[in-house]
Amino acid sequence: MSLLLTLFQDAPVSEASKVLEQVNGDMGMLWMLLSGILVFFMQAGFTLVESGMTRSKNAVNIAMKNLLDICVGSLSFWLVGYSLMYGDTSNGWFFWSGLFQGEGADLFFQTMFAATAATIVSGAIAGRTKYTTYIIFSIVMTAIIYPISGGWQWQGSGWLTELGFIDFAGSSIVHSVGGWAALVAAFMVGPRIGKFVNGKVLPIPGHNQILATLGVFILWLGWFGFNGGSQLAWGGADATGASTVVLITNLAAAAGGLGALITTWIWYGKPNLAQTLNGALAGLVSITAGCGNMTAGGAVLAGLIGGIIVVFSIEFIEKKLKIDDAIGAASVHGVAGAWGTLVIGLWGVDGDKAIGLFNGGGASQLGSQAIGVLAYAAWSVALSFIVFGILKATMGLRVSEEVEIEGLDISEHGSIAYPGVRVREIDEDK
Amino acid sequence: MSLLLTLFQDAPVSEASKVLEQVNGDMGMLWMLLSGILVFFMQAGFTLVESGMTRSKNAVNIAMKNLLDICVGSLSFWLVGYSLMYGDTSNGWFFWSGLFQGEGADLFFQTMFAATAATIVSGAIAGRTKYTTYIIFSIVMTAIIYPISGGWQWQGSGWLTELGFIDFAGSSIVHSVGGWAALVAAFMVGPRIGKFVNGKVLPIPGHNQILATLGVFILWLGWFGFNGGSQLAWGGADATGASTVVLITNLAAAAGGLGALITTWIWYGKPNLAQTLNGALAGLVSITAGCGNMTAGGAVLAGLIGGIIVVFSIEFIEKKLKIDDAIGAASVHGVAGAWGTLVIGLWGVDGDKAIGLFNGGGASQLGSQAIGVLAYAAWSVALSFIVFGILKATMGLRVSEEVEIEGLDISEHGSIAYPGVRVREIDEDK
Amino acid sequence: MSLLLTLFQDAPVSEASKVLEQVNGDMGMLWMLLSGILVFFMQAGFTLVESGMTRSKNAVNIAMKNLLDICVGSLSFWLVGYSLMYGDTSNGWFFWSGLFQGEGADLFFQTMFAATAATIVSGAIAGRTKYTTYIIFSIVMTAIIYPISGGWQWQGSGWLTELGFIDFAGSSIVHSVGGWAALVAAFMVGPRIGKFVNGKVLPIPGHNQILATLGVFILWLGWFGFNGGSQLAWGGADATGASTVVLITNLAAAAGGLGALITTWIWYGKPNLAQTLNGALAGLVSITAGCGNMTAGGAVLAGLIGGIIVVFSIEFIEKKLKIDDAIGAASVHGVAGAWGTLVIGLWGVDGDKAIGLFNGGGASQLGSQAIGVLAYAAWSVALSFIVFGILKATMGLRVSEEVEIEGLDISEHGSIAYPGVRVREIDEDK
Repeated sequence: MSLLLTLFQDAPVSEASKVLEQVNGDMGMLWMLLSGILVFFMQAGFTLVESGMTRSKNAVNIAMKNLLDICVGSLSFWLVGYSLMYGDTSNGWFFWSGLFQGEGADLFFQTMFAATAATIVSGAIAGRTKYTTYIIFSIVMTAIIYPISGGWQWQGSGWLTELGFIDFAGSSIVHSVGGWAALVAAFMVGPRIGKFVNGKVLPIPGHNQILATLGVFILWLGWFGFNGGSQLAWGGADATGASTVVLITNLAAAAGGLGALITTWIWYGKPNLAQTLNGALAGLVSITAGCGNMTAGGAVLAGLIGGIIVVFSIEFIEKKLKIDDAIGAASVHGVAGAWGTLVIGLWGVDGDKAIGLFNGGGASQLGSQAIGVLAYAAWSVALSFIVFGILKATMGLRVSEEVEIEGLDISEHGSIAYPGVRVREIDEDK
Repeated sequence: MSLLLTLFQDAPVSEASKVLEQVNGDMGMLWMLLSGILVFFMQAGFTLVESGMTRSKNAVNIAMKNLLDICVGSLSFWLVGYSLMYGDTSNGWFFWSGLFQGEGADLFFQTMFAATAATIVSGAIAGRTKYTTYIIFSIVMTAIIYPISGGWQWQGSGWLTELGFIDFAGSSIVHSVGGWAALVAAFMVGPRIGKFVNGKVLPIPGHNQILATLGVFILWLGWFGFNGGSQLAWGGADATGASTVVLITNLAAAAGGLGALITTWIWYGKPNLAQTLNGALAGLVSITAGCGNMTAGGAVLAGLIGGIIVVFSIEFIEKKLKIDDAIGAASVHGVAGAWGTLVIGLWGVDGDKAIGLFNGGGASQLGSQAIGVLAYAAWSVALSFIVFGILKATMGLRVSEEVEIEGLDISEHGSIAYPGVRVREIDEDK
Repeated sequence: MSLLLTLFQDAPVSEASKVLEQVNGDMGMLWMLLSGILVFFMQAGFTLVESGMTRSKNAVNIAMKNLLDICVGSLSFWLVGYSLMYGDTSNGWFFWSGLFQGEGADLFFQTMFAATAATIVSGAIAGRTKYTTYIIFSIVMTAIIYPISGGWQWQGSGWLTELGFIDFAGSSIVHSVGGWAALVAAFMVGPRIGKFVNGKVLPIPGHNQILATLGVFILWLGWFGFNGGSQLAWGGADATGASTVVLITNLAAAAGGLGALITTWIWYGKPNLAQTLNGALAGLVSITAGCGNMTAGGAVLAGLIGGIIVVFSIEFIEKKLKIDDAIGAASVHGVAGAWGTLVIGLWGVDGDKAIGLFNGGGASQLGSQAIGVLAYAAWSVALSFIVFGILKATMGLRVSEEVEIEGLDISEHGSIAYPGVRVREIDEDK
């Protein structure tokens, strides 16, 4: 923990070193609590990004899904999730310590991560999914899917930990699990009416890019807590460690935003706002695994590449896979999450030691990272297929065509987002 | 304060224990300052909730009222409010230490509470109240009404403290005082034109539910400082105490949101966004008094019931009392505030000790809580009647019918909220 | 640093005092990091203020400029800016320590200041400036203009430090440098079409005053980190010092808002929202230099006058100088920045010592402050003229008339802010 503490440790434990230990614990709790508060605010960011990037007739539904994630997630992660993730009894794959485990700043911080994983899915399936369907998936995600696989690494004695896998703040554990679930969900639910017409892929622009921009700023802000708080401590080396995490998180986000901005300028002829926003988010996802194992320069490169990849990934999923991911969640969180996990094996560091293929650290870390990436992808894809498959076979995933055209807000929730404002959906392409 | 400190207290005060004491003080100051910063942000949340839940033609007026609250409140609470609330000279009912008392993080934190109490009123009387009227009430609220009754409990030697009354972060002291004042104000000002027509109660939907949602997320965020900061310290037991406060605050908010969501689904047939937002806020208000005296399970139950109550309370005030509280402030802050205060007497705890009627702690705490609830209600109602009565008899409370129909923004402030956006008020019911 | 530390300093350095020193360092790092996170969020505030106060057809362009500032600023300040500002090798005017200097919480915090200086310019030239032009200026601002002159005072051995100049958090160093650059930029680019017609000055109202209000609340929030974090430490006297900074920052903002509210009421007949927002910001700028050298009463007076000045300054620049500063950035940041710097020489204090002309401290501090104000103005104006002059002579500053009328969003970025919402620009005066 602390340098000073080690200076005194050959002597019998002194009063002063006990004070230091207690204070470090107290400061660590403060940092985790504040970080959890920042991560909570990401729910507002997701709401704005998802509603801003989709049409106004479904904005109430988006808000209701995001509110549900934090409401349901807070309760279900407290009820069983925490225990499934951090429980003592284990075979390395499943953990359990009983109901209602976890407390204080730790449970609060971890709860916000579970809610984040669920929320990633809500945007991808916007505009055509039944609210009841989403509720059930959100419960399963925060109570079972996310916690079980999260324990593989973060419980501390899981099989991925034993393997030497590194995912500091959750590029794979949180973001790719959410992102791959989003991809499966978007595939299972099917595209929105008007997305794929006569073999053509039509854009369905969002209704408020300024709210989307505000949402990205809020997510960027919250990510300082998401990554920095994952240090789980403060004081001595932990203080400088967490500070460095925050610094390079910002550098990667900046590089990701620039990467997408430049890519769209070259590719489409103009610097595009929506993609720049996605690029910044992809930069953040790309450094989430490695923020404790990356130099500042390595972080910039990781984020830059993440911001470039995301532009092409969105195109690929839309144009080649013909899957209608309404806000690019699978690319931003899934693809960039996988990239952010792998990059540790390419130019990661462990303190002063190189652990990457390209910086002379050998290939073994890259191998561990690849196994982790695949494990989280397989788990999330398999579980999502099962859950959405059962839901499809029983209650159905989609609203009716009439409801979809009219907008989910009126039919599912009985009100519209902007009652006093005359709104006309404009197809930018016509 | 701290466990460690007590270990050393039989010895002469050591250098190390002095260090611990100083550091705990410094950490406590940091936590209070950060909490105050979070509570400040609640003003933005109130602005969005109140403007989003009312019509666009009055949005500038809402913004001007909320700005006024923080501007006037910061100055008046510094000038006299702090002294009236925390002053030394006292008979248990009134306190005073001279002008310009309070300093640093403590004054900053307490100022934000005063501004919150005032802001609660602004939404209830939206759409028909003179700006001059509101200014005077805002001054009286932050300078006199809130501080005097706040001192009864939080000064530390007031009559409610002596009685054993518990209100950790202000369900009664802040929220119900604001909520009851809002109810009186809405009654005195009278309903908006078009609210009660031929015996029918017509809905007047807000103009931007997404901004209202963002506002609730901001309030929820700020509430972590509101409740958590009310620990007033950090370090040792205070660190775990404040962390637990934040955790159960979140659980109660989640339960409150779910409670209202499910209630509206059953009651109206669809899960309603505006009421879910109110439910989350009601959950927060419901745990504000008891966040230091509640188990996690107790908090969930308190919040859940708060979220259910608020739906019916809004209906009752509108349909039975025929009072037009434009955003449900009296229900969210007054009714849920009273509930949150009483619930401590039902299943509250004091450390490991049960103090509630239902958990075997006897009825005495419930009695104290009820007296406090009634005292704050009586005080707020009485003072509000006097202030609005004098204002009504002298300068008048309402704008003219023409101004109300046109919207207050043009007549009271000379500009509209969305000059470039064509806006048409739509009556959803027609 | 700490009172306690000094108590023990005549004895050989004890274990306990070493612990205190380490903990103070750790707490200071925590406070700086959290403050930097708050300052980061100001970018969102600027985006909302600037887009809300201008027309919807240019909102995407505003968002792209603000995103660019944080992306480019984070990279360029890390690459060279930090070294130019805080480098060791120096003649008092220019500093340098090599590329990629700075680390952790310190670099993170300082980076956010550089991005702020750049962002101030973006609003002033909204609606007619080429995106490419802005990119280049943003790079030069964060890499060269801001860091070089910032070092004069904040490096610690610069010529303004030697002179006794005081600018605690950057009224001159950040805000006036940004504000004067904004004025030069607005002058060089020329007014928007429709601003000055036949000798008349026409208002071009912003499209969303609620987002602008939210933006000001976010800026106000972030300013607690901007000013409070400039204490650069926590613990003992630093804890109370930083807390006092935050408190009086809030008082000055409140007074500034009130000052503008009352001024517009008297001057225009109605309390005006846009100017009240500018007044609160001017109050904040007015206390940014002196927040460590001002009594609470002095801060209120400084903010109040700042809020009044800004109303007249905006009129003067628009009506007398005929410069079209689209959001009043030169007045809010430049004029109020100069005022906030000078006021230290009028009624500033240094601990218990008066240092102002009006509180018996003599005229020498006022002289130092005036030299600093002029130095930052001269530097910023000169460098801005050079950069914009070169840009004008080479690539040109303005978009074509057709692009300007259509809005920059479509032509420069290929999308509009509100695709689903029918928008009609309304000239309030007609």
